[in-house]
Amino acid sequence: MNLIVLEAADFVAADRVRLTDRRREHARKHLKVAVGDRLKVGLLDDGEGPPAPNLGIGEVLRCDREALELRVELGQRPPPPSEHTLALALPRPHTLEKVLQQATALGVKRILLFHARRVEKSYWDASAIEPAAIRSQLCLGLEQCVDTVLPKVELHRKFRPFVEDRLASLRERGPVLVGDPEAAQACPRALAGPATLVLGPEGGFVDFERERFAAMGDMLVSLGPRILRVETAAVALLARLA
Amino acid sequence: MNLIVLEAADFVAADRVRLTDRRREHARKHLKVAVGDRLKVGLLDDGEGPPAPNLGIGEVLRCDREALELRVELGQRPPPPSEHTLALALPRPHTLEKVLQQATALGVKRILLFHARRVEKSYWDASAIEPAAIRSQLCLGLEQCVDTVLPKVELHRKFRPFVEDRLASLRERGPVLVGDPEAAQACPRALAGPATLVLGPEGGFVDFERERFAAMGDMLVSLGPRILRVETAAVALLARLA
Repeated sequence: MNLIVLEAADFVAADRVRLTDRRREHARKHLKVAVGDRLKVGLLDDGEGPPAPNLGIGEVLRCDREALELRVELGQRPPPPSEHTLALALPRPHTLEKVLQQATALGVKRILLFHARRVEKSYWDASAIEPAAIRSQLCLGLEQCVDTVLPKVELHRKFRPFVEDRLASLRERGPVLVGDPEAAQACPRALAGPATLVLGPEGGFVDFERERFAAMGDMLVSLGPRILRVETAAVALLARLA
Repeated sequence: MNLIVLEAADFVAADRVRLTDRRREHARKHLKVAVGDRLKVGLLDDGEGPPAPNLGIGEVLRCDREALELRVELGQRPPPPSEHTLALALPRPHTLEKVLQQATALGVKRILLFHARRVEKSYWDASAIEPAAIRSQLCLGLEQCVDTVLPKVELHRKFRPFVEDRLASLRERGPVLVGDPEAAQACPRALAGPATLVLGPEGGFVDFERERFAAMGDMLVSLGPRILRVETAAVALLARLA
């Protein structure tokens, strides 16, 4: 926890927060804070509009078994976001959690989860895709990388409308790159503008899906001869594009 | 498990293996193989000398509660290795496991673990650094990325001899890039030759350590304004250099 993420509801006065949950616990047990210590804090920003100067310092007024109280002074801007969008065939819950955290830590602000033939149907019933569960993973990512702007996560349960309609507006912003082990073309690096990076399910896309992307003009790109876990591929590709 | 990794001891005849451990279990329960199925197999290569054509196919002769027996035909070469060396201040055991797997999956063939001031001493007593434990993580990485060449992992319990002596021979091969949040220079991308990538402990290097690297002519490089977990930073940087 490199940042204590605050929400509007934590404020008990204009410049004061009172925390009683795992943030208090963490400050006490792991950071071993004392009155007068100064911690990095950030007020969560829902990402509507330009990033607010929501990062700052919290001076410890109290930290005990009951509460962590901080006098808060905000005013710094969060680090610049990644321009890229990450689209992911819905992975198994544990993988989803890791990817949400890591993509957030890398500054991605839009994450699309979609269905594909080889996505197990049960993943769509997992508690990991409930809004509160997703939000808590995103917050862990923000705590790690010291950022306040919450990424937006969208769920798309139908493949075809996702590819044909949802991706259409992203195609206007920049290329859609679809990771495909069988593609001949290597994934480009250091793109000038925003791109959408699409990763398939374990076992890859089926032919019909590949054809839909190609028919829409998307670029099928190889990620090299090695088969990578989704979380490794996502981080590697985002780093390559950055 | 995209590859069944074989060892010399698995062979019961020149072209036949008999497996009774988790590989049998995995083939039965997850791959649900039947007699006649063909699986990707690879004979582990200790990495001395050029990579042998140790990848191939195993035809299932038997798969039941007792044993998985395969008729094996090898002859394909593994994917080209990464030229880069990854040097890591010894992380906590769970992180170490993830990094070993992921670096292996990305094709890294030399991983150096070293001590630094902010490495917890207890990490050097963890069972995760025993040779068998390290080897099993490396094998998981090879199973993932379909490769047979085992990376070499070295343990260096003293910081100064590591930086001054062990890194000396790597400096002759290419630049040593030391990730440092306070560095002004950004990490380069797509290097022409091999490099050694050095990542510090949680909390970073102390001044004395930074000065030692600088005194040896190593390049302190920034990884951007975001603080990343070691496993995320390692994958992102390896991808950036690749």
